[in-house]
Amino acid sequence: NDALRPWVHCILLSPVQVANNMMDMDQDPRKRLCFADGRRKVDYVLVYHYRKRSSVRGSPSQHRLSIISNGSYPLGVEEKDQEGRKDEPAEVVVDVGPPDPADGEKIMIREEFEGNLKDAGLEIEHDKELREEKGLAATMNEVWRKLNQPFQPKVPHQENLGNSRMSHCYFWPFCRYNIKSKDTFFDNATRSRIVSLYCFAHESALFFCLTGITTLIANGVYDSAFPLHDVSFFFLLLHDEWARYGAFYKYQPVDLIRKYFGEKIGLYFAWLGVYTQLLIPASVVGIIVFFYGWATVETNIPSQEMCDEDQNFTMCPLCDRACDYWHLSTACGTARASHLFDNPATVFFAIFMSLWAAMFLEHWKRRQISLNYSWDLTGMEEEEVHSHTYIVTLCYSLLTSVCLDSCTGHEKLTWRDRLPGYLINISSILFMFGVTCSAVFSVIIYRITISALMAMSSDPEVKSNVRVTVTATAVIINLVVILILDEIYGMVAAWLTELEIPKTETNFEERLILKAFLLKFMNAYAPIFYVAFFKGRFAGRPGDYVYVFNDYRMEECAPGGCLIELCIQLSIIMLGKQLIQNNVFEIGIPKLKKLCRTLKDKERAPKEIVEQPGRRQQWHLDYDLEPFDGLTPEYMEMIIQFGFVSLFVASFPLAPLFALLNNVIEIRLDAKKFVTELRRPDAIRAKDIGIWYNILSGLGKFSVIINAFVISFTSDFIPRLVYQYMYSETGTMHGFINHTLSYFNVSNFKPGTVPSISSLGKDITFCRYKDYREPPWSTEPYQFSKQYWSVLAARLGFVILFQNLVITMSMLVAWVIPDVPKNISEKLKKEKTLLVDVFLNEEKEKLQLIQSLFSRDLTQEQQEELKVSDQTSLPLQQTQPGQLPPTSSPAPRTRPRAASFSQFTRQMSMSPRSDITQHTAV
Amino acid sequence: NDALRPWVHCILLSPVQVANNMMDMDQDPRKRLCFADGRRKVDYVLVYHYRKRSSVRGSPSQHRLSIISNGSYPLGVEEKDQEGRKDEPAEVVVDVGPPDPADGEKIMIREEFEGNLKDAGLEIEHDKELREEKGLAATMNEVWRKLNQPFQPKVPHQENLGNSRMSHCYFWPFCRYNIKSKDTFFDNATRSRIVSLYCFAHESALFFCLTGITTLIANGVYDSAFPLHDVSFFFLLLHDEWARYGAFYKYQPVDLIRKYFGEKIGLYFAWLGVYTQLLIPASVVGIIVFFYGWATVETNIPSQEMCDEDQNFTMCPLCDRACDYWHLSTACGTARASHLFDNPATVFFAIFMSLWAAMFLEHWKRRQISLNYSWDLTGMEEEEVHSHTYIVTLCYSLLTSVCLDSCTGHEKLTWRDRLPGYLINISSILFMFGVTCSAVFSVIIYRITISALMAMSSDPEVKSNVRVTVTATAVIINLVVILILDEIYGMVAAWLTELEIPKTETNFEERLILKAFLLKFMNAYAPIFYVAFFKGRFAGRPGDYVYVFNDYRMEECAPGGCLIELCIQLSIIMLGKQLIQNNVFEIGIPKLKKLCRTLKDKERAPKEIVEQPGRRQQWHLDYDLEPFDGLTPEYMEMIIQFGFVSLFVASFPLAPLFALLNNVIEIRLDAKKFVTELRRPDAIRAKDIGIWYNILSGLGKFSVIINAFVISFTSDFIPRLVYQYMYSETGTMHGFINHTLSYFNVSNFKPGTVPSISSLGKDITFCRYKDYREPPWSTEPYQFSKQYWSVLAARLGFVILFQNLVITMSMLVAWVIPDVPKNISEKLKKEKTLLVDVFLNEEKEKLQLIQSLFSRDLTQEQQEELKVSDQTSLPLQQTQPGQLPPTSSPAPRTRPRAASFSQFTRQMSMSPRSDITQHTAV
Repeated sequence: NDALRPWVHCILLSPVQVANNMMDMDQDPRKRLCFADGRRKVDYVLVYHYRKRSSVRGSPSQHRLSIISNGSYPLGVEEKDQEGRKDEPAEVVVDVGPPDPADGEKIMIREEFEGNLKDAGLEIEHDKELREEKGLAATMNEVWRKLNQPFQPKVPHQENLGNSRMSHCYFWPFCRYNIKSKDTFFDNATRSRIVSLYCFAHESALFFCLTGITTLIANGVYDSAFPLHDVSFFFLLLHDEWARYGAFYKYQPVDLIRKYFGEKIGLYFAWLGVYTQLLIPASVVGIIVFFYGWATVETNIPSQEMCDEDQNFTMCPLCDRACDYWHLSTACGTARASHLFDNPATVFFAIFMSLWAAMFLEHWKRRQISLNYSWDLTGMEEEEVHSHTYIVTLCYSLLTSVCLDSCTGHEKLTWRDRLPGYLINISSILFMFGVTCSAVFSVIIYRITISALMAMSSDPEVKSNVRVTVTATAVIINLVVILILDEIYGMVAAWLTELEIPKTETNFEERLILKAFLLKFMNAYAPIFYVAFFKGRFAGRPGDYVYVFNDYRMEECAPGGCLIELCIQLSIIMLGKQLIQNNVFEIGIPKLKKLCRTLKDKERAPKEIVEQPGRRQQWHLDYDLEPFDGLTPEYMEMIIQFGFVSLFVASFPLAPLFALLNNVIEIRLDAKKFVTELRRPDAIRAKDIGIWYNILSGLGKFSVIINAFVISFTSDFIPRLVYQYMYSETGTMHGFINHTLSYFNVSNFKPGTVPSISSLGKDITFCRYKDYREPPWSTEPYQFSKQYWSVLAARLGFVILFQNLVITMSMLVAWVIPDVPKNISEKLKKEKTLLVDVFLNEEKEKLQLIQSLFSRDLTQEQQEELKVSDQTSLPLQQTQPGQLPPTSSPAPRTRPRAASFSQFTRQMSMSPRSDITQHTAV
Repeated sequence: NDALRPWVHCILLSPVQVANNMMDMDQDPRKRLCFADGRRKVDYVLVYHYRKRSSVRGSPSQHRLSIISNGSYPLGVEEKDQEGRKDEPAEVVVDVGPPDPADGEKIMIREEFEGNLKDAGLEIEHDKELREEKGLAATMNEVWRKLNQPFQPKVPHQENLGNSRMSHCYFWPFCRYNIKSKDTFFDNATRSRIVSLYCFAHESALFFCLTGITTLIANGVYDSAFPLHDVSFFFLLLHDEWARYGAFYKYQPVDLIRKYFGEKIGLYFAWLGVYTQLLIPASVVGIIVFFYGWATVETNIPSQEMCDEDQNFTMCPLCDRACDYWHLSTACGTARASHLFDNPATVFFAIFMSLWAAMFLEHWKRRQISLNYSWDLTGMEEEEVHSHTYIVTLCYSLLTSVCLDSCTGHEKLTWRDRLPGYLINISSILFMFGVTCSAVFSVIIYRITISALMAMSSDPEVKSNVRVTVTATAVIINLVVILILDEIYGMVAAWLTELEIPKTETNFEERLILKAFLLKFMNAYAPIFYVAFFKGRFAGRPGDYVYVFNDYRMEECAPGGCLIELCIQLSIIMLGKQLIQNNVFEIGIPKLKKLCRTLKDKERAPKEIVEQPGRRQQWHLDYDLEPFDGLTPEYMEMIIQFGFVSLFVASFPLAPLFALLNNVIEIRLDAKKFVTELRRPDAIRAKDIGIWYNILSGLGKFSVIINAFVISFTSDFIPRLVYQYMYSETGTMHGFINHTLSYFNVSNFKPGTVPSISSLGKDITFCRYKDYREPPWSTEPYQFSKQYWSVLAARLGFVILFQNLVITMSMLVAWVIPDVPKNISEKLKKEKTLLVDVFLNEEKEKLQLIQSLFSRDLTQEQQEELKVSDQTSLPLQQTQPGQLPPTSSPAPRTRPRAASFSQFTRQMSMSPRSDITQHTAV
């Protein structure tokens, strides 16, 4: 058990201005990870700025690294004997920084924090320019204390500081137990267990440390804190087998990822993997649906009729005065394109995708449980697994709540304190909503005005390209606006969440995610929602158009229907967003940032590099990397993508395919980023993906109703059905186009809106427009016709039918797929069976042992027998005869024994674990 | 700890033909609960039939009772010393029943089962007519064995029998550990803990016993098995404070109920209490809505117009030939009545009730968690609570799965074995569905024919009462059919579930409940659904009526609308079902059954009663009570009622009030039944109400869509809105009635359908009917008009709006109300903090104790010190100096010690509990 030693090391090391050559492999990589003695492994690095005493030029501040280790040795280095290590004093080297008034408090806090870490059994080393002897280090430390003394009076010392809010969390949790001599407080087993708690494969390891450190970093006491990349077998395996585009077709080594980066990041990649994997069937079905549309376009009667030049529908002009009447057959192209996406298979696909979403969530639930199962049991020494996992769970949950409460609790804020925060929140979100809407509206205005201006142009070249030019530029403007607002909204969400002062870290994260999601979702989807449900619905009718700014007619959909426009909008935003986000935000900007920092560092301290050419330690390399910002942006990107895949899938069956292609790249891109471009993130334990699951499930539900509306209102599916079964005389689709076009008497045009120059306009009395309205010769001209109302009823009926059908089916899917995979539940059952065996055996052996210890009449021979039974686990019967003497001994002598005996057994039985069991179960 | 003694007693006692006077309090009630020695308390009774050897007249079989006790003494009886009891042999008195070939195997199984019980430490006593001496009993027992020997050869003996399927479960679970001498296997603490497992206040107590016994009862080896009513303080308290109509306004003593009847029954009453309590606000709002309708009926324009005789709408006749034209104003009464339930407040009420249902579920979740919390910790000796709860949980979950699997597993059935069962299931359910539908249809036919016949009658008295008579009789027939089918469906569901061969008991129960619910729900609601959504919609129109059997016109709704009919149907079925179920099924039939059994017993063995006048033991009294059938019928009744309250609440706002009144009585009725009329049920632990919660939540969701449809399609709410905002010229409701009535040209009547004798018919050319159709003079006479489609669209739109709005609001309610009440979560947090203290202290003390035990150099003085420290729990520091000597002793002597020491500590740390923690958490 030497690997789980109770000593944890810390080094504080000198300014880092090293390493332009990132992956300098000349040095023994193992050495780079070690303390000055080249043996103890460095686990964690703390960086802080300090003023150099000798610094004459007054370069304002420099970095220091403080490195913490769990004391496990890198492979191959011979291990010291434990007893020997015990006597070795924890080495602490602190340089004599000048306690300048401004930095005074910071230095003190740092002192105290590091003192606490050392008290808790961690070892700390300071990395400096000039390496000093151990003995000297101790002396210097003493000197520092003495030097520091005269500078301290202004600030209340330790005791008072200990009560100040900020230092709440500096104290090591076990200080609560008033441990004066920690060597004797815990027995070896407990000690090793508790220590393994923070050595637990880097995971929960530095949790406590971090709780305090986040506050310290926020207050500028430290600059940053990160664990070191461990350029070991695991790392190289990850580097070669995972963070490589060539491996795109392979499963991810999730267990390895979890071992190296911790459960939280492991879960993210596992989730991304499951999602990507499930996109494959969705893509296949999407492609089939698309090809079905492609194959049936020739036989599709409505598009045939639209392209049929004999039918010769004369349509009303698309703009006032400048536009001429036109023949419907000129819109043949869009009609045919529209059929690719707007065909009966799309309805099936929308249902399929809703069930797919339900299936995805269920599948992920199962995977999560499998992962939970395997991750909690594997990767630990087998005999430690039970107690270990238990303690980790126990302390973890306890300390999280206790510590975070005292950190961020701020003496229980009342409703009144929070009210302004909430009010600002609500009003800000409403304001952002307004911003998004006005952005969408501005683009509409842009589109209207530009197309009007271009239509008025006399150049026929310009005129013919109106729609294409306007649509393309508008979508690109939309995209740019979305990308800009996305960044702004991320910052706004963080700001708003801070205003709320959430109680715990988890709470903070959840609220932040929820807000950011709300804003970004709105931002990304507002233009799409507009095209799907509003565009062309407020345009009015010939003779009674709706005008904005008194001059510009509201835009209508293309003659092929709004669906094709929705499809274009969707695909451009989806692809554009993904490409730009991947290339610019995830690759470009980090590279730029790094370049900037390197240049800055070079400028600031060019000398030191020259001074120390040989000192390219791992922490210098790691410090140069980008800090890790959390998983939120990664998840957010994927969730927004999930929205594209599920929400409007009825209009764009190829969305899953594009998502799949993006994700295959995304996985490796993220992997590369985590392995080579980011400082190693703190390993955080997590049981699930948290609020993201709820968001996913919410999106899944929302997608049902959205798809229902897209099918029934945006596509022509329902009007076609209604025509075929209610109005068509032949029972076929022939005559459908004619049926959807209303008549308009050109004499009813308002003055000044009649086409000024018209090639067709001479002998025309009626023009047609797409709507269900009464003809001019009816008693209620231009009112909505009976067809309009029947189609509307059918559309609404379809929405109800679709929504309830799909929700029921989704519930069925979720019900049929068990949450716990069968092999896991069988394993659990087996374990339960084993448990009672273990439990009873344990009780038996315990009893046996205690009885033999207490028996005074035990002869030497019986003692020998006992030993045998202990070592070979003989069945009970053999040792029985000699085991029940206590009652036969004289009463006055047995009494006190009996008392301690019962107390002993009671204590054993009084273990609090059962309690935990019960409450976690609740 | 004498109360938790490891001896559990059993008595088998002689035929029970005692006690007509049920609650004979002459005897000391305590004595009646005891073994023959009058001291050991009887816990459990097993009854079996046997042939009397002396029985010459050959009365076929008689009952025997076997009583098991946990050995706790009733209050007041002095307690024996534990050592004394230990030596006392378990007394077993078995009479020399003749091992007749048919009964041979049963007797042997009984023998074996009781032997196992005794092996496990239970004490058994056989109750017989003639009490025999203990010595004699033993002799008789021996005699019985010898006598039995010759009759045994045919059946394979013990070993083989042990392998047969049936005996799998007879074996006491601990037999798996090959316990030969149980006295030495467990230490006292473990022993008392394990025994307390089945003594746990009667709850889990007899679980193991029961697992085997259910099989044995099914095979006829035993007749019945039940624990005894404990006429103690608790029982009397329950009797006085709970099972009394006078206490109807009080909260239920839920903790007491749980203590006496176990968690499962406790949860039922707690749930019923929460439900009833929450019905109070719902009733209040319902009454307000009803009074709103009542107050506005005078000012309501549509009903004013309907009653206005000046408007004089001449309506088309309601039946062919026999019926005359009629004036709408004659239907004034129903119009006014209809307004009571069909007004805008109803819409609000429907939304309110949907949210109420969501709130109810959330509230119950919280209550359940509170109960779980308090029940797992209280009611136990404080120091036992941790380990105890833990063991109970552990063994419980383990044994449930292990034992039930081996009982009902039937060597893993494959899909093929199950297929026929599933097919029968599906087809049977479809068949039952058909039966229900045809029952509903038959009643429709009855209604149509009777009203036609009555309309043709010449008696004006008969004619005027047509509608009332027909409706009343039809609803009563409906009710009777429902009640009969309800019983049949209950049996069918049980039969079908047995066909499926579910894997575990829980599984069986869930499937049974689901099936029974499906069938009974369908049965109860089919006629209501018919009235709400189908009645009058297929009647056709004047001149084109729909006929059934070529002769009878399909029925239409009353002129006031279908809502009033729905309301009548609903109230009669709801009230009728509840009243009849409460009075007949829950009070009448049990009384009858008891009477029958008493008469039967009297006939069969009138002699014994005379023989033993003084032997009215508690088990005789209890045996006369009704056996407990499980909670399913109770829950089912309440869930069906919940359906009435939630599903069609839009049509009948008084439903919550009636439900409330019923439940206030129901609680006390059930209480009385449990306390005085049923044998005491086995106490079963349960964490929640199981599948009923899912059913409730499903009903809640279903109710949203049903209410949406009732409001938009059954009530006139939407047509009125549409009229007011789309068609009304004044913007008021004036003219609404005229608008809803279409014109029919009487010349278009089919020949033979014109009223034969008509007082109004002479100068009539048009009659009116309620529908939106084109007038005769339009181009498409009698087709649905534009109004029809616009109203339909509005109705469907309302459904979508209502459904999504209410679902969103319900989700918000569920999200806003936290699942864990605040005080509980705070308590849990506190406990977590305490836990680490306890855990660390425990580890510390354990270490201390062990160290002191192992120290060889421990002097007598130090030993004294240790005793003191053990008893007073001195802090660690004081005992430290003398505690770390083991290393200083010579190596060869310490080695084996050290080995066992480390083994010991390892075992303690290897406790499997952590594992459980983790998996239950998963």
